[in-house]
Amino acid sequence: MKFNIPKTMKAWVLGDPDELLFIEKPVPEPGRAEVLVRIDAIAVCATDLEVISHGPPAMIEGGLPFNKKFIPGHEYMGTVVKLGPNVDEYETGERVAVEIHAGCGRCKRCRQGMYTSCHNYGKNYGDQDKGHRANGYTTDGGFSEYAVNNINTLIKVPEGIGDEEATLIVTAGTATYGLDVLGGLIAGESVVVTGAGPIGLLAVSVAKALGAAPVILTDIEANRLEIGRELGADITLNAADVNVVEKVREITGGPGCDYVMECSGAPGALNEAADMVSRGGRICLAAFAAQPVTFDAAKLVMDNIYMFGIRGEGKSAVKRAAALMGQGRINAKPIHTHSFPLDEVPTAIKYAREKIDGAIKVVVKIKQD
Amino acid sequence: MKFNIPKTMKAWVLGDPDELLFIEKPVPEPGRAEVLVRIDAIAVCATDLEVISHGPPAMIEGGLPFNKKFIPGHEYMGTVVKLGPNVDEYETGERVAVEIHAGCGRCKRCRQGMYTSCHNYGKNYGDQDKGHRANGYTTDGGFSEYAVNNINTLIKVPEGIGDEEATLIVTAGTATYGLDVLGGLIAGESVVVTGAGPIGLLAVSVAKALGAAPVILTDIEANRLEIGRELGADITLNAADVNVVEKVREITGGPGCDYVMECSGAPGALNEAADMVSRGGRICLAAFAAQPVTFDAAKLVMDNIYMFGIRGEGKSAVKRAAALMGQGRINAKPIHTHSFPLDEVPTAIKYAREKIDGAIKVVVKIKQD
Amino acid sequence: MKFNIPKTMKAWVLGDPDELLFIEKPVPEPGRAEVLVRIDAIAVCATDLEVISHGPPAMIEGGLPFNKKFIPGHEYMGTVVKLGPNVDEYETGERVAVEIHAGCGRCKRCRQGMYTSCHNYGKNYGDQDKGHRANGYTTDGGFSEYAVNNINTLIKVPEGIGDEEATLIVTAGTATYGLDVLGGLIAGESVVVTGAGPIGLLAVSVAKALGAAPVILTDIEANRLEIGRELGADITLNAADVNVVEKVREITGGPGCDYVMECSGAPGALNEAADMVSRGGRICLAAFAAQPVTFDAAKLVMDNIYMFGIRGEGKSAVKRAAALMGQGRINAKPIHTHSFPLDEVPTAIKYAREKIDGAIKVVVKIKQD
Amino acid sequence: MKFNIPKTMKAWVLGDPDELLFIEKPVPEPGRAEVLVRIDAIAVCATDLEVISHGPPAMIEGGLPFNKKFIPGHEYMGTVVKLGPNVDEYETGERVAVEIHAGCGRCKRCRQGMYTSCHNYGKNYGDQDKGHRANGYTTDGGFSEYAVNNINTLIKVPEGIGDEEATLIVTAGTATYGLDVLGGLIAGESVVVTGAGPIGLLAVSVAKALGAAPVILTDIEANRLEIGRELGADITLNAADVNVVEKVREITGGPGCDYVMECSGAPGALNEAADMVSRGGRICLAAFAAQPVTFDAAKLVMDNIYMFGIRGEGKSAVKRAAALMGQGRINAKPIHTHSFPLDEVPTAIKYAREKIDGAIKVVVKIKQD
Repeated sequence: MKFNIPKTMKAWVLGDPDELLFIEKPVPEPGRAEVLVRIDAIAVCATDLEVISHGPPAMIEGGLPFNKKFIPGHEYMGTVVKLGPNVDEYETGERVAVEIHAGCGRCKRCRQGMYTSCHNYGKNYGDQDKGHRANGYTTDGGFSEYAVNNINTLIKVPEGIGDEEATLIVTAGTATYGLDVLGGLIAGESVVVTGAGPIGLLAVSVAKALGAAPVILTDIEANRLEIGRELGADITLNAADVNVVEKVREITGGPGCDYVMECSGAPGALNEAADMVSRGGRICLAAFAAQPVTFDAAKLVMDNIYMFGIRGEGKSAVKRAAALMGQGRINAKPIHTHSFPLDEVPTAIKYAREKIDGAIKVVVKIKQD
Repeated sequence: MKFNIPKTMKAWVLGDPDELLFIEKPVPEPGRAEVLVRIDAIAVCATDLEVISHGPPAMIEGGLPFNKKFIPGHEYMGTVVKLGPNVDEYETGERVAVEIHAGCGRCKRCRQGMYTSCHNYGKNYGDQDKGHRANGYTTDGGFSEYAVNNINTLIKVPEGIGDEEATLIVTAGTATYGLDVLGGLIAGESVVVTGAGPIGLLAVSVAKALGAAPVILTDIEANRLEIGRELGADITLNAADVNVVEKVREITGGPGCDYVMECSGAPGALNEAADMVSRGGRICLAAFAAQPVTFDAAKLVMDNIYMFGIRGEGKSAVKRAAALMGQGRINAKPIHTHSFPLDEVPTAIKYAREKIDGAIKVVVKIKQD
Repeated sequence: MKFNIPKTMKAWVLGDPDELLFIEKPVPEPGRAEVLVRIDAIAVCATDLEVISHGPPAMIEGGLPFNKKFIPGHEYMGTVVKLGPNVDEYETGERVAVEIHAGCGRCKRCRQGMYTSCHNYGKNYGDQDKGHRANGYTTDGGFSEYAVNNINTLIKVPEGIGDEEATLIVTAGTATYGLDVLGGLIAGESVVVTGAGPIGLLAVSVAKALGAAPVILTDIEANRLEIGRELGADITLNAADVNVVEKVREITGGPGCDYVMECSGAPGALNEAADMVSRGGRICLAAFAAQPVTFDAAKLVMDNIYMFGIRGEGKSAVKRAAALMGQGRINAKPIHTHSFPLDEVPTAIKYAREKIDGAIKVVVKIKQD
Repeated sequence: MKFNIPKTMKAWVLGDPDELLFIEKPVPEPGRAEVLVRIDAIAVCATDLEVISHGPPAMIEGGLPFNKKFIPGHEYMGTVVKLGPNVDEYETGERVAVEIHAGCGRCKRCRQGMYTSCHNYGKNYGDQDKGHRANGYTTDGGFSEYAVNNINTLIKVPEGIGDEEATLIVTAGTATYGLDVLGGLIAGESVVVTGAGPIGLLAVSVAKALGAAPVILTDIEANRLEIGRELGADITLNAADVNVVEKVREITGGPGCDYVMECSGAPGALNEAADMVSRGGRICLAAFAAQPVTFDAAKLVMDNIYMFGIRGEGKSAVKRAAALMGQGRINAKPIHTHSFPLDEVPTAIKYAREKIDGAIKVVVKIKQD
């Protein structure tokens, strides 16, 4: 398939903090192991809000000035429209979702397959170029018409998955990374997901897809718990009404659950997770409190508990998530609540930030059907 | 070999809190899958001090009254003097060290091989008997002349290892469990051990035995750091003098170390561990602060870090440690500082508790050579 | 729930080779960690045919005489009717399926959680008693009205699963053990199952449940391939018509598949598996040729391939399979083709052995609804 | 450090089959993520003999004509003399050993960290360039004065290791890959190494470094078994004199060993390995018979045995081996038997091929001290 690719494109770029500018930029050229993706849809992630207010993460770490003219956004999908030299892994016309990180391929972590923990993250400027790319973090992202992607960040969108839903493959990949890849969840194990934001809700769906039972979801908003049940949660607990730790111990007959996936970032979440997980169990942290919290590590030691954080999706977990979504095992649709066109990105962001009208996942739909 | 086994034995048992009584008790009889061990030497562990002051752990959990007449002590070694029915895995006359836990063999964790995380721990009384045994915690321990042991808790003492040193096999097993079994440490990785108590010092020796490089030890006592160097530490850092986090980052050329084994229980240890481990690294907690601490979990999430507690030794790690000790790879001798005879257990405990005369590992030597 | 348990029961026992006798035997008594199961249904397994002709496996290994009066059969399910001392993990009245092996709990493999590879297998007679039990192999099996089972061999039958289907939970567990536990199959990987017998067909269903794609089934019987499609096979290949190796390479775009599960026992199966698996892939052997075969190991070495045999179900894989079956992810129903009452066991065996009337899984239904 | 790099260099290149030509070639230029290595020493590997007779492996697979002017040789070490753009992981003047494969970094296996099983192996010519490099197989090797290397293939030579010994780091890495990375050998497990060639002998040393006990070596040549004892073998068995399978079972008290590393390529080796490994054990194949062999797979299935081939070194195992060698845990010196200068490569090869004068590892020493 042959695409007419314009010389320039429309893109939202960072201006001053909290300022986004809608400008015309040159369409980038794909290099070795890269393709050009026409962006068809992009979801707003909570991290984008951070980037828009405080600049891309790597910029901050590196002590660089606030990065004007940088395109944020990483939860996108689109269509391959041009191939870099020697790329035959994809064809033009294929629909793809993207994951964030293309590892440098040369550091210790990348060589272990842990490319999201790349030690050269953020070193992709000028003389320091180590090849790590992170869409919307260290390289231009997706609030735009086109983006260059390393082929390692592409996942084919399974048939039958619409554009909006496909933007959530990477979010499902994050949950899959936590539960399956790092957590080693197995069928029949009990899972508690704390916090019913997009990752928490998808974690429910992924946990069910992996055969977990029961899957318990906690939150303080009834409507989100309702969506959780729609996505397969066997039990939902409203933390505003019940003592979640006691309830989990009761449901599991005493010892607690096998696995906690903490997605709330609530200050008490760590201690509660440690209190509701059974001896020898595991706690995955997909969120964290804005401030340091008071934490009792004794439980981790006395009960031999693994607690681990997840940095994005990692270890090709997005491919697993895409496979499960294509088989109808993961249902991301109920999480997508609002859509806006490209020229209304600021409105989309406002909806996401302020949770207007019950917004969970807000998607910018660029390709008009 | 045939042993004359008396009807009664001398044993130290718990009286009121912080009271130990030296009494005469019947020598116990080994049952199915058990042997009778004549105790030749036993080391004082920090946990023993807790037990003596507050009762055996399982008692507390179960809400039982303070357990008078219970024998504490779990770091012991001795000689097999009698076999239970059908036991042919051991012969009388063999020297054995012991690990603490014999799993129930029927709970979820035991069936995973995680017998130290047994969900039936503490349920070994009366009608509830589930078969889990934990020497000195839920069943009589080793401040005594004889003890019954499940064969699963026995490790043959390699030739050339003396009685006192053999009591430390289980401590080396704890370090091996953290570094090797759960942590998956590989040759060439960098390790920081924080805290130069017995487990920390043996962790240095075990890390070296596993090929780690460099192995860095931190503490605030110069004499313990000196012993650490004797045990193989490549670098020692006195936390009273230097900023340990900065130093570790400097030594590793920036990213931090691959592995932190926290053995200090210091209030700031968790945050420091997270700050000195590299992205994608691991933190093993072998100690914990007496009180909850202020902890910033953001680092775990943003840097994809595993943090896990270890409940004793687990997963036959003690067998690995014994093999390495028998090959001269782990040297526990410098950690053993004092010996006392059985009738001086209170003095031994006082030395251990108050670190009198630079005491690190205090051993009660029961068999007189 | 309280059950009236008779003093004696009807049971099929081994007489001379290939002779089964229908006799009256005392109902056994459950001991420590055991329950008495009223057998409601039992499937005929190919291994049963071996046992009936050649005696229980452990007998042969141990050089014992042909074991008259031994009850064969291991693929059974039933109802807990009596509890041994201290058993509270189950209640009377619960429906359970069983797995074969209760490990000795004291050998090296059992302590690793590999209880099916127990080194004390077959040593459960007289003075040698090590506690390993294997239903229908070393201890009385299920062609009978009652059987004693170690609680470690029990799996609760999920709601909505009928008796006949529940006999296949253990077969699904075998496939789960190979694909999931030992094989580490992940969603999106390609799988070829060679041989559409009961294990092969269930392997198709399990592979789909785990998210594999595509799942390819090969056999030479069109009707079995048809059942394979019903169970979810994406592609079926009739090895009588096409070159299976070439086809697999074509379907996978060149490199071959990620995983082969060999269930045919055909003489050429090993070499074909090695030829159709991709570099770095895995081959699970669930069957083997009656005679040694000609095998070219070069492929394993040059392409870094794992090949491993599975000894029954192992590592609690049956629990995973039961969870997936309860969630409707594994469908065993189409594999069950015939049922007979207890007094017609010889007919059931004849159907299974001679594949009369397209028999795949023949079940003896003992409880009459 | 600054090096004077000539425009041309001396190199041995392939002519017709079994013909090597000593020619002058341009010194290659390091590109992105590459350095130029001045080769100081290179060992002759058995695979080199294959390459010299039949052409580089990738050539044959791809159906290309015999590759005249290609430089064979992959077991080399040397000095970094020039850095490619943005390389700061190494400095000029550093001594490095090399592993063979630099993965493409974009195929499924590379993304799993299995770069030696790269699916783009051999596709590094012209339009097909996928970036996989394999020294001496698909890109020019080391029988030469200089070679370009991807930084992922470099390992720093530990202090105190001479040039000749350093050429064996990669061979030790192969043994480490089999025993440690893929095999998961743990301290205290029993290992049999069958075949006392270079890999077998280093496998003995690596097994000892990992704490295996006992380590048993078999061969039919007494002098090689003698070297095995020097490298740490606890027991050596001359297969010409004793029944090796029986002996191993006797030594292990019945069940057989935990691990067999097969390095002989003898026709009966597969069956013997299966017969001497214990139930639940593992067999690593580092060699294979020239012709298909008769093999009884029943043992693998009935005893739940893993058998896996190793394709070179893989998963950064060479780094582990280098660390252990630097710590004096692996001793490669006794394996190095002969040295020749660069202009005597044909003689070196003749010694290696014909095992003249008891040759085990023949090294070409290029840098004259």
